[in-house]
Formats: sequence, structure tokens, C-alpha cells
Amino acid sequence: MAFSSLDSGLTGPLFATHEMRTVFTDRNWIEAMLSVETALAEAQAHSGLVPEKLSLILGGIDAADFDPAALGEATAISGVPTIPFLKALRDKLPADCAPYLHRGATTQDLWDSATILLIRQGITLLLAQARAVVIDLVALAEKHRLTPCAGRSYDQHAAPVTFGYKAGLWALGLAETLSLWPTLEPRVLQASLSGPVGTFAGMGDKATAVQADFAARLGLMPSLAPWHNRRAGIVQLASWLATVLAVLAKMAGDIAHLASTEIGEVAEPYQPGRGGSSAMPHKRNPVSATLIVAAAQASRGLLPGLFDAMANARHERPAGAWHGEWHLLPILFGLTSGALREAASLAKGLTLDTERMQANLDMTRGLLFADALAARLAPAIGAQAAHDKVAALADAVRRTGCSLHDLAMEDDALQAQIGREAVQTVFSLNTAREAAARSTTVSLSETARHLALLDDA
Amino acid sequence: MAFSSLDSGLTGPLFATHEMRTVFTDRNWIEAMLSVETALAEAQAHSGLVPEKLSLILGGIDAADFDPAALGEATAISGVPTIPFLKALRDKLPADCAPYLHRGATTQDLWDSATILLIRQGITLLLAQARAVVIDLVALAEKHRLTPCAGRSYDQHAAPVTFGYKAGLWALGLAETLSLWPTLEPRVLQASLSGPVGTFAGMGDKATAVQADFAARLGLMPSLAPWHNRRAGIVQLASWLATVLAVLAKMAGDIAHLASTEIGEVAEPYQPGRGGSSAMPHKRNPVSATLIVAAAQASRGLLPGLFDAMANARHERPAGAWHGEWHLLPILFGLTSGALREAASLAKGLTLDTERMQANLDMTRGLLFADALAARLAPAIGAQAAHDKVAALADAVRRTGCSLHDLAMEDDALQAQIGREAVQTVFSLNTAREAAARSTTVSLSETARHLALLDDA
Amino acid sequence: MAFSSLDSGLTGPLFATHEMRTVFTDRNWIEAMLSVETALAEAQAHSGLVPEKLSLILGGIDAADFDPAALGEATAISGVPTIPFLKALRDKLPADCAPYLHRGATTQDLWDSATILLIRQGITLLLAQARAVVIDLVALAEKHRLTPCAGRSYDQHAAPVTFGYKAGLWALGLAETLSLWPTLEPRVLQASLSGPVGTFAGMGDKATAVQADFAARLGLMPSLAPWHNRRAGIVQLASWLATVLAVLAKMAGDIAHLASTEIGEVAEPYQPGRGGSSAMPHKRNPVSATLIVAAAQASRGLLPGLFDAMANARHERPAGAWHGEWHLLPILFGLTSGALREAASLAKGLTLDTERMQANLDMTRGLLFADALAARLAPAIGAQAAHDKVAALADAVRRTGCSLHDLAMEDDALQAQIGREAVQTVFSLNTAREAAARSTTVSLSETARHLALLDDA
Amino acid sequence: MAFSSLDSGLTGPLFATHEMRTVFTDRNWIEAMLSVETALAEAQAHSGLVPEKLSLILGGIDAADFDPAALGEATAISGVPTIPFLKALRDKLPADCAPYLHRGATTQDLWDSATILLIRQGITLLLAQARAVVIDLVALAEKHRLTPCAGRSYDQHAAPVTFGYKAGLWALGLAETLSLWPTLEPRVLQASLSGPVGTFAGMGDKATAVQADFAARLGLMPSLAPWHNRRAGIVQLASWLATVLAVLAKMAGDIAHLASTEIGEVAEPYQPGRGGSSAMPHKRNPVSATLIVAAAQASRGLLPGLFDAMANARHERPAGAWHGEWHLLPILFGLTSGALREAASLAKGLTLDTERMQANLDMTRGLLFADALAARLAPAIGAQAAHDKVAALADAVRRTGCSLHDLAMEDDALQAQIGREAVQTVFSLNTAREAAARSTTVSLSETARHLALLDDA
Repeated sequence: MAFSSLDSGLTGPLFATHEMRTVFTDRNWIEAMLSVETALAEAQAHSGLVPEKLSLILGGIDAADFDPAALGEATAISGVPTIPFLKALRDKLPADCAPYLHRGATTQDLWDSATILLIRQGITLLLAQARAVVIDLVALAEKHRLTPCAGRSYDQHAAPVTFGYKAGLWALGLAETLSLWPTLEPRVLQASLSGPVGTFAGMGDKATAVQADFAARLGLMPSLAPWHNRRAGIVQLASWLATVLAVLAKMAGDIAHLASTEIGEVAEPYQPGRGGSSAMPHKRNPVSATLIVAAAQASRGLLPGLFDAMANARHERPAGAWHGEWHLLPILFGLTSGALREAASLAKGLTLDTERMQANLDMTRGLLFADALAARLAPAIGAQAAHDKVAALADAVRRTGCSLHDLAMEDDALQAQIGREAVQTVFSLNTAREAAARSTTVSLSETARHLALLDDA
Repeated sequence: MAFSSLDSGLTGPLFATHEMRTVFTDRNWIEAMLSVETALAEAQAHSGLVPEKLSLILGGIDAADFDPAALGEATAISGVPTIPFLKALRDKLPADCAPYLHRGATTQDLWDSATILLIRQGITLLLAQARAVVIDLVALAEKHRLTPCAGRSYDQHAAPVTFGYKAGLWALGLAETLSLWPTLEPRVLQASLSGPVGTFAGMGDKATAVQADFAARLGLMPSLAPWHNRRAGIVQLASWLATVLAVLAKMAGDIAHLASTEIGEVAEPYQPGRGGSSAMPHKRNPVSATLIVAAAQASRGLLPGLFDAMANARHERPAGAWHGEWHLLPILFGLTSGALREAASLAKGLTLDTERMQANLDMTRGLLFADALAARLAPAIGAQAAHDKVAALADAVRRTGCSLHDLAMEDDALQAQIGREAVQTVFSLNTAREAAARSTTVSLSETARHLALLDDA
Repeated sequence: MAFSSLDSGLTGPLFATHEMRTVFTDRNWIEAMLSVETALAEAQAHSGLVPEKLSLILGGIDAADFDPAALGEATAISGVPTIPFLKALRDKLPADCAPYLHRGATTQDLWDSATILLIRQGITLLLAQARAVVIDLVALAEKHRLTPCAGRSYDQHAAPVTFGYKAGLWALGLAETLSLWPTLEPRVLQASLSGPVGTFAGMGDKATAVQADFAARLGLMPSLAPWHNRRAGIVQLASWLATVLAVLAKMAGDIAHLASTEIGEVAEPYQPGRGGSSAMPHKRNPVSATLIVAAAQASRGLLPGLFDAMANARHERPAGAWHGEWHLLPILFGLTSGALREAASLAKGLTLDTERMQANLDMTRGLLFADALAARLAPAIGAQAAHDKVAALADAVRRTGCSLHDLAMEDDALQAQIGREAVQTVFSLNTAREAAARSTTVSLSETARHLALLDDA
Repeated sequence: MAFSSLDSGLTGPLFATHEMRTVFTDRNWIEAMLSVETALAEAQAHSGLVPEKLSLILGGIDAADFDPAALGEATAISGVPTIPFLKALRDKLPADCAPYLHRGATTQDLWDSATILLIRQGITLLLAQARAVVIDLVALAEKHRLTPCAGRSYDQHAAPVTFGYKAGLWALGLAETLSLWPTLEPRVLQASLSGPVGTFAGMGDKATAVQADFAARLGLMPSLAPWHNRRAGIVQLASWLATVLAVLAKMAGDIAHLASTEIGEVAEPYQPGRGGSSAMPHKRNPVSATLIVAAAQASRGLLPGLFDAMANARHERPAGAWHGEWHLLPILFGLTSGALREAASLAKGLTLDTERMQANLDMTRGLLFADALAARLAPAIGAQAAHDKVAALADAVRRTGCSLHDLAMEDDALQAQIGREAVQTVFSLNTAREAAARSTTVSLSETARHLALLDDA
């Protein structure tokens, strides 16, 4: 089936990584459910609540022995996949073990814990991908710390910066988002084991010990208090993934704009067969940027549904709200995996045209220095007068085609006010470059600090 | 793969119908692309633009001859599935035909037209499902036109209505949404054929004729003006599907609440194996309501992404915005198909406990008639005084456990003000039932009018 | 207060029109509530249900006699503004009239009907604004029907179009959205009058007559079936407004990109004091585009909340869902008013730099004609070979700085395959211009058709 | 104006607190802008970049001397409120100071820093409100640690819990969200001072020192790297506020359901004049729950727009995306303030009907213990057989009206399998109560841990 473009055979490989596609499979979900029941049996056997034989047998069962299609047909009746799974699993157990399967647990414990196991796999993949992107962006920023290019606001030239300065902020944007993960991790990677109404009543005094043992066997944090109806971890996870995608989309949007035919300052790395058009042999489309922007766009909309699910988690376990999560959460992993793959390609291989950057800086004939000229002039004649004077000169630049530098040098009043040398200084790129390089240093040091936060966790 | 729960083997059969799952398959997408190229070749052959031989050969090619996995791997390079599809298709053509394939068209023409073919199949399924739901809800409303039950506001008893009145509004809610489809249909079911920048420049004077012929062969409306960058049809379609889901969710929410243990006025139709719990043998969970609520919850979030796609459809064809649609639109079809299947089950088989409805009406000891009593009293003593008087009596009901009727009959002042007979009339259910029945008649007549709008289209 | 930037004294005039700001005021809301109660009393007096004196007195009461701040403080207690309003209104009535005020109606009838009266005023303003924008865009499209400029996909040059072609699609995008209004109008501009649980039980047989008379006096459609818990009209209205904003944002996004310093094909109309920077005297920022994009961005998010409200409209009248609408719906009117004002400014006064358009067309040295060249070559040597040949020539253009035209003329093989004349034809802008002009004609004729649909309604 | 119900005089006091309404005013925004320019001048004077006189004069200017309406009209021209504000401010300065105002800074520095000052005030209010709610919920949980009530899943009775257990999870849900704030605070409460393209080029070597001094004077963290185009802090803040609202909405939804007429286990605290109906004198509507649910519903939709703004923060400063934030962010503060006020009222004054809780537990005639009975029976006869046996008994309960306890005691086979004593134990509430109390202890200890995290920050 292919309602989601991530799952389609035709488009899935485009939108998600192979590795992430291997995580979110029926087989892996069955495997995760099997791990959950095994860990539960082991923990309960350890506490003397179920026969040890049960845990040994469970440990020997192969996820491949389950038929996903048959489970799916039965799920359409039962309303949850856990019931047919448990039935099929129980059928594989000897009569003296079967009664102890899933003891004290409930559907939501099983499915949520299994989902978290998949999520942990997914997070591991994403963090590795994202860290590599940061590192390549840092290298890009360092390489071009002093490569001048136009700084833009409202898509208009504003004042010069350097390309390294831009790349440094891309790096920092990603790193500062990644460094939230250590705070989120213990809130997200929690096992669920608390029974039908969350009190794990069937376990009596042994509840806490079993919960802790169970979680440890799965490599997760225990959830001593039930989270059947507390879904903050889920929405925070989703919000974090959507933030990663928004960070990448900001970079992708910058790149798509800089790759516009007329600007032409960057091109996506050349990849044979990519970026072509079914109709136009000369096109080189920014495919990576396209995929990232599309992923971010698709992700945004998933949040309201998950916040809904949280808000409507009525009483001990809700109707509808929880199932609604299933539709949305895994999709975020697929989208993020694909976007990070494309971001990695950009970070590593973005092609720069530094001549074009310089040509673009020159094309406004010095207007990029208008800000600096006004600032220099203000102390002499007042800010408003300086602003008005430079605005008038800027109009003359547009009208006459002369450069602002030349007009400033020919303007006797101006010369009298601040002198030739000051004008020359104003029109030097050095001030802007040095400021950009200094700011890049700060961004990269902040980036390193955030990566360290991630490493220490 | 199973990023989407609709595509999962384990949960897909629960969330989407088998029929809809058959529409959104890789195979069907390839089939649709093949239909598009065939219709294009036929239309162009008819206008003398390509050899007739091409269209004949295309008509004989089998969608099963394409390897979705291979196409998918190539799509991950090319950025769009159309390029590898066209390459594979061209490889099946003789050398004298191949150059004429896809003539004058562009990737977006091919993919959008193919998508619309799938959407048409999906819409046909959904309309048939939805119409059946309306008809069963109408029957339910007619059957229970006079079955009294509590009307509720803020989840509190407010005044009596009938169950038929409630069901009639469910029916109307769905019917009035369906009747928007005839307005949307010609805006949505449009072929796309306008070439790389929308001007279909390659076709010269024959553009309009080819566009019309092409569309007719696909059974779609022609799109004379390009819609590569005008996506109002897509967002209106999505908004309409989300409205259908919200209508169903309103009904499902009502049913889940009425099925609460303490209210117990309805139960979902009995289905062996459904609604059970992995832990609790006595549970009968409202699974249909759950699935509908979950679908509606998941759907809401998809709209912002599609409005994004529309707003960011820059220039003649955008980067990213269009791909973003792919992630979201088909999911709405899957969700709606499953929700309508469950709604059909509810509409046809909802179990009513009319004794419980009467018992619930009685449990507030006449407070449901407080509104009517105050209205009857107001002309005699003024609205505020009447309101205050009845509020005081209502407090006495809560305090003493007596019924409002009895307190009213024993209240000499009240008797003097309006008389015993008036009090008896006030406390008769008949007024409320008749009003509800009258309103039901209006709802059902409006429902019929909306269904007729749908039929006439 | 100024939680919303639309309501702030500092930023409100920027984001919403003065006229729309005059619609959504406390005073106007009180006025609308007064109109509703007056129309109700008149309709009921006409049916002999309340004294005619009541309606006459109500008609003479001035909205200015109410103290919004006092009503607001009382609303914070009561939970709805209608209760203190009715109390204040009742205090102005003689004792023999007061009991008949608001007879048979409920809070939601009063507030929803009053809201619809404001919405009607808002819609009237928006339709007039939007129609003017369409007309000015049509004029812009006609004027530049043959003005060549680059057609772009993925923000890259794709093939030539004309500026009129672009403007014609902006016009059509807006017109085709506007023409949905006649379908929505009777679904949206409905009075609400159906009492506490929607059955209007207090009115007995006269319910329908009173409802119709009441609605007619307000100039609205009657709502025979209650819509307290059927909110499709609200979400369709919101979706329509969001679509209008998305249409405008698409145009604004195009304009902001075309106004980029390096592209420079358009500039926003000059307005003294606008588009300047607090820091940069030379900047001319695309302020109108900025405001439109911001409005569309803010609007998208409002839909999920309104769909929530619809889905959660439990039983006869919900808790929370309805109040949630109040937060969101009026904001859409404010945003749309401001965006249309800015769009009007753009449609009327956009400054074109046609020399720059031509220069941009020339800057890729003929690559814009690569598509046409390949199409012309395909019948001679096969599509793939033609595509590869032209791709190779395109590489040479990028490498050598020569034009594609010159390389094609010097390529002996190519000359042999299609001849010099064909090459000259391929590189003529005429084909592209004619195709664009033809497509513009279609767009404008479709635009006219949609405007006529709007007029006929 | 009143596009937002938060800003309306009629409804604003209902939806937001008076204190929060005092934060987001035009006057306070002007005050904040004045503080920003003063702090900038002081920091720059300290570094010798501007005359000390400037900072002294700025410190003496009164925000009340600005005319918001005049600024607003000028903002409608300029596109940003900062330009007219700076002009008005400069007009108040002597000629020798005016040129140094706003030196090196840009509009976004001024507006973002001022916004953060308001946000800091807002956060201070919200944290104090929220902490009080947690503390009252903890007291509620402790008081009712052993008060039995039905645990519910899918709105159906599942197994007994205690009311304290429920309240403890509400407390924990809020506390665990609050404890994220210390992580977010340094990311959100950052001053902005980095000039037109973020490099603070005008300041040369003194940039870092001035940035740090400026921030310290405002009581904010310095933003060494510019955040003009890195908006993760904004979306994380918004996501956090939306999470707070979703936590509260979960509690409100529970309460509204428990306050349903038929369930009747809780009532909102009595407040004269609240919860009445304009039509129905006997109603006591859950107004606090209504307001909280509405606020959460309205909040969800705001996130996609803010993620949009982040993703589209193109280049050094974007067009549109930034303005879009203005529409959405302050609204979250208004909504959260009102929702917390209502939550405080619920936490402190919720009325419990513990007799009704017991009666509801009894109404299913022991079915709540079905789970426990099956668990007890499973080791004896196997899980499936136990499940089937108990399901059959549960059917008999529904059919005959007998209690499950009585049927179990009369069932000879069952007696033989586990014995009378075991049956008695199963049907004792004690096991469930003890488990719930134990789980409450965990929840409250986790709550305390999270509050301590908040305090330590």
C-alpha cells in the first residue's frame, strides 16, 4: 500500500533513508513486541511472578514466524494489533506457560513500549546523521569564513557578510536543536508498564521492581508513573523533530534562493541523473532543497494532531486520541531521515561560485555600503540628515548608473564633512568581512558547545 | 514499509478499507501514469502530432511489466518518479515511436494527472460509502423520531429531545457536506497538460484541442489554464475530506459519550472479537468511534501543509511545495475510507437502550423541565423572578431529593401564579418530543435536499 | 489590550484595514446583539407571541448605552457575554415587557446570529476588495500579454513566458476562489434560532414561521435545522478565507522573489516612507509582499482549531469547542482585509522593469530555448539522443560562455539534422510569447467566467 | 478593536487574566522599546561609543509621552512599528544626541528584544500561576489518595482506582512540563543585538562587550550569535506553552466528563453567577473546563504558523516570516493565563461527590473486578480459558442483573478452581486502592522532583 509517499515503492526511497525504512517495518514492529513480552517475562520470572520457562521460550521465538497479513486482518476486527499478536504468541507457548504471558500488562504497555523501541532505533540513526551534517557545515563555515557575499534582508541586498558566516548559522541552528535531545531523552525513551488503568495493580508490592527490571532489559528508562494518559513526551519529541526539519528547511530555502538562475551563487552537488527535467535538458534543479522543504512542510501539520491526542487523553486511557498518534509519529521519522540525508549531501558537496558572489556584491554599485556611509556621516551632521543624504545618493546611483563610491567621492559637502579617507574606509569590504568572521567564530564556538552537550549526555 | 499506519500490514486493514488500499498502490500509480501517456499519445495522434502507432503500442503495454522497486531506486536519484518511469516506458518503444512519447508535456502534467485518476477512484468509493451512511442514519432518525432522551449542553442535561432528532442532525451534517462535492468536482477532477512552464508552447495552435481530447479520454475535465501553480482545487478537496471526517467525529464523539458506562444509552453493534481488551474480559470498547476520532484527529493536521504548498507554489512550478502535497493528500483518502466504514457500521447497527434513556431522563427528578417551567412562569411574574424562582426550586431538588414536579405542585405561590394544569403540561414530555420530532422532519427534509443536489450533479 | 497584532494600536493599522477594524469592535458586537434581540421580538410580536411594545422599545435602544467594560467584567463570571448583555438589556425594559425578552432562544442563538451579522459585514468588505484586485490584475495581464520574461521552475529559468501570463494566473487564482462564495453563502450567512437544545421547543407550531421571519428581518437565511452542533459552515468559511490568503501569498511570494536584488524585474509601488529600513537608507523592502505572506502564514494555523471545534461539538451544544471558535474566526477577517489591501496596491501599482526581464532572459545565453531545441531535434534523431545532445551543448554553454544559439549554428551535425532555419525558429521568442499570450487569453476568459459566477449569485 | 477574543472588552476578561492583559498593551510595548534603546545607549556609552548624555536623557523619557495611535498610523506606512517609534524618540533628543540613537542596531534587534521583555513578564506570571496549580493538585491527590472511584478506558469502566491517583497524574503532567523551562529559558530570554545582517559590523571589536552589557542591563542572556534567522527558541517556547495548555485540557476534559449529569462525580467550585444558562435556570455548566478546552484548542493551530516562520527565515532576515510571528506568539500568553486561572480554581475548589463515586463503582455489579478475577483464575485453568470464563460470567451479569461477585460465589467449578477466599479477595477494593495509592506516591514524588528542577533553575 502507499497512502504515504514514504511507504510507496516508487517514492519511498526518495523521501526516506533505506536505514530508516528498515526500522519502521511490520517485521520490526513484531520483533519489538516480542522483545517487550520477553523482557516482561524475564523481569517477572526474576521476581518469581511467572515461570522462568516462559521467558526462556519467549527468547527463542522468531519474529519471522508471525504472519503480518493474518495479524492485520485480525487487527481490523479487534481494534488493536496487540490482541491478535498476543493470541498468536500464546498459541506458540506450552499450556503451563501461556497463562503467564503479558501478566498484569495492558495493550497500551505493549504497543507503546514497542513503539519506543523503534523510536530509539530511529533516534540513533537521526542523531548520527545530524551530527555529520553539523560537522560538515562547520567545515564549510571555516573554509569560507572570509569569502564575501551579500547579506540579504527581505530578499534584498542589505550589507556584506561572508558565506562562512551564513554556513556557521546553519550549523548552529542544527546543533542548538540537537542539544535539546539530552533533556528530552529520559522523557521519551521510557518503557511503559502499568497495566489496564495505570496502577499496575496485578503486581502488588513488586510493581516497582518489575517495572525497573523490565525497562532495564529493554535499555529504556522505567516509567514508574504511567504515561498512558500523559503524552508530553510524545509531543515534545514531535516538536523537536519538526524543529530539526524547520532548521534544515531554513538552510534549504536559502540554498534554493541562492541557486536561482540570476543569483547563481551556489549549486547543489553534481550527481549524475539528478536534477534533470523530463522536458528540459538544460535544467539543474535543486532537488535536495526541494526534498527538505517538502519534508518540513509535511511535518508541520502533524503537530496539531499530536497535541490533540495529548489534550484528549481522557481518564486512564483514551478512545481515539491514542490511535491518532499512530497515524502521525512514525511519519516524522521517515521525513527527518530523508531531509537529513539531503542536508548531508548539501553540507558536504555544495558548489560555490565565489566569482558570482563578488559580481553580485558589485552589481548594486556600492549601495551595500550605504548603511556604513550613513553611520559614518551621522555624528557629523545628525542621523536623520545622514540618512536622508545617503538615501538621496542611493537614488542618484539608481538613476545615473554611477557607483555610490564615485558619487560620494565627488560630493564636496560630503568630503568636507568626513574626508576622503573615511569614505575609502567605508567602502572597504574589510570591515564587513572582519565583523562576519568574528561572528562566525562565535557561531562555531556556540556550535561546539552544543555538540558537547549532546556528547556528554 | 510502514511509516503510515495506513500502509502497515499490521494496522492498515484496521484504518483503511480494502478497496481504498487497492486504489493507492504502486501498481495502480504506474497504471495511472501509463493511462496518462496513452491518452496523451492518442490525443496527439488524433491531431497528427505523433504517429498513431505510438498510441497503439502504449495501449498494449501492461503496468505489471514495470518493476516498482527499480523505479523507486531510480527515483531516489532523479527526484521525481516520472523520469525513471518515462525512461522505462521509452525502452519498451520502437525507435520510430520513442521520440514522440510525452511530447510537449512535463513531469507535473504526468504525475498530477495520474494522481487525479487515483483520486477519482477514491472519491467514487467514498461517495458510495458516505451515501449509504446518510441513508442508514435517516432510517435511524425516522425510527426514533419520538424516542425521548436527554438533550445535553456542556455535557449536562439541558432539556429533553428525541434520539431521532440527534440522528437526523448526524445525517444532515454528512449530507450537507457531501452536497458540496458537485461544486468541487470540476475544480478537482481536472487533467493537467500544459508543459514545462504551463503554456503548452510545444503544441502551438493545437494546444487547446489536444488538452480537451486528452482530458476526455481520461474522463476528466480539461485544464485549459495550467494548475501547476494554482492549487486551490487541492486544498478545497482536502478541506472537504477533513470536513467529512469532522462530521463523522462529531457523531463518534456523541456515541462514545453516550456509551460511557454510567450513561449507557447506546452500544456499538456487537461484533465477535471486537472491543475486547487484552487485559479486561468484561470490556466492550467503542472501537468504531475510536477509529473515527483518530482519523479525524490525524486529518486536521494535514491541512496546514497543503495550504503551505498552495501559498508557496512559486512561479511556474515550485521547488518543494509540490512534493509536500504528495506526503499528505493520499493519506486523507485512507483515513476517510476507514472512518466511513466504521460510521456505516454504527449507522446500521447502533444498539439503543431506550429504557436507559428514560431512566436517565428521570434521574434529575424533573430538572430537565426547569427551562419549560421558567418560560411558563415568566409572563406571570417576570423573567428574572421566574428564573430565580425556578433556580431556587432546582436547588431544593438537589438538596432534598424530591422531584421538581412534586415541589412545584406543592408550591402554593406557584399554583396561584399559573395553576395545576399548566404545571402538568410543563412536565409532560410531549411538548419536547413534538418539538424534536418537528425538528427531525426539517433535518430529514434538508438531508433529502442535499442528497438530491449530489444526485443531480 | 493587544494580544493580537491586529488589535494593537501600534500594529493594527498595518495588518488590517480601517474598515474591517470598524466591523469587529465591542460596540458593533453589542449593536449586533441588539439587532438580534430586536428582530426576535419583532418576529415573535408578528406571531403574537410577545407584546409588540417590546419590539418597539428594543428598536429604540442605543448600543452606546451599554458599558462594554462592565459587560466584560460580568462575562468573566458568567462564562458568556450574552448573559450580562441580556441582564443589562432587561434592565432597560418596563416590567410588562422584560419577561418576553429572548423568548425561547438560547445564548448560542444570540451570539452566533450576532457573529454572523458581523461576518456579513466583513464578507461584503472583502468581496469588494477582492473583486478590485482581480480587475486590476486582469488589466496588468492584458497590458503585458506579450512582455517576455523567464518562466521558472524550482526557481530556475525553465522557458520563456510573458509577464501577462503570470499575472493572468494570479487573477484566475483569486477569481476561481471567489466564485466559491455563492455556494458557501447560504451555508454561512444563516441566522441561528433554535433554543437550548435546538428544537425551539418553546415556540410550538410557530417555530418555523418565527425562524423565517426572524432571519428575514436580519437579512440572513433561516436556519430551520439547528447548527449549534453542525459547524461545517464555519470551517468552510475559514477554509475559504485561508484559500484567499494562500492565493495572495502565492502572488506575494512570486513578487518578493522577482524583486530580489539580482532579479530586479519588479518593485513594489513607490510609497513615501514605506519599505525603508531603520538602519539602511538604500533599502526598498517589499513590504506589501511581507504583510501578505505573514497573514497567510498566520491563517493556516487557525484551521486545525476550527476543525477541532467542529469535531468536538458534542451533543446538542458543546463545552469548549464553541468558545474555541471565538478565538480564531474573527482573526481571519482581519488578516484577509490587510492582505487584500496590500494586494490591491500591488495589482494597481507594481513597477515592472522590462529591460531587466529581457536582460535576465539573455543571461543564460539561450539555455531557455534548450527545451524547444530538443523538441525540434527529437523527431530527427530520437528523444533520448536529442535530450543528450542538447544537454551536452548546455554544458558547453556553461563552460565556454558562448550562447546556445551560436553553438547550435556552428554544430555541423545539428545543422545537417534540422537545418539553419529550424534553429533560428527555435531561438525566436515568438513561439514562447504566442503560446503564453494564448494561455493568457484562456486564463482571462476563465477569470471572467468566475467573476460572472460571483456576480450572478 | 477586537479581532481576538482576548483583546475584546466583552470577552477578554473571561479568556485572559487581568495581569497578563496588563503585560501585552501598547503602552508596555512602547515602554519595552524605550528600555531597549536606553540599555543600548548605556552599554554603548560605557564603551565610549555614544555620549553618556544620550543614555541619561533616554532614561528620563516617559513611555506615556508617545501617542500609540499616531505611531500606529505611521506604522501602516513604514511596515514596522520601530521606524515611527525611533523617529518620535529622536524628536525628543537634542541635536548632539540624536545621531547616536539606535547605533549599529536594526529594527529586528529593537522589536525582538522588546518582545522578549514582555515575554519575560508573561513567563513570570505563568510560572507563578502554574506552580500554585501544581501545589493545589498535590494537596487534592494527597487528600483523596484512598478515595475509590472507577478507572476508565475508552470512557468505559475498566478497574478501580482512586481519585487521588487521578489528581496525582494531573499534577505530574503539569510539573513535568514546567520543569522543561530551565532548559528553555536561556534559549528564549535572549536579548537581540546584532545589526542589519547579524554581524553587528558597526561595532567593530567592541561588539561582544556591548552585546553582553546591553543584555545584562535588560536582565536577559546575551545573544552573541544573531537569532534574526534562527527561531528555534520561539518555536520551542510556543510548543512548551501549547504543551502546558494540552496538560490542562486533559484535566479539563476529565473533569467535564466526570461532571456529566449521569456520572456526577465532580462539580466545578460554586461561584455565584457562573455556569448558569441564559435559558435554563437549573444548569450548572463546567465553565472552567470549557475555557481551558477552548484555549488549548485555539493554541494548537498556532504552532504550524510559527514553524513556518522558522523554516522560512530566509537569509539574514526574512520577508513575511518574521511578521507572521507577531500574529501568533502573544496570543499564546493570553490563552495560557486564562486557562491557568481556571485550572487554579478547579485545583483549589473542585467539589467531589464521593458517594456518587462509590455508587458508580457499584453500578456495574462487580464487572470492575473482572480483570482481577481472570488474573486470579488464569494460573489455575490457563489464560484463555480464564478470559473466556470471566467473559461468560460478565455476559450473565448483563443479562441477569446479578452481580459478578454473586455469580462467582455460586459457580461451583470456579469455587473448585480457586476457592471462596480467593474470590472474596478478588472482589475487595483494597488491592486496587493500595495499588492506586502506591502509584500516587510515585506520581507525587516525581512531581516534587520536577518542581525542584524548576526551583533550582
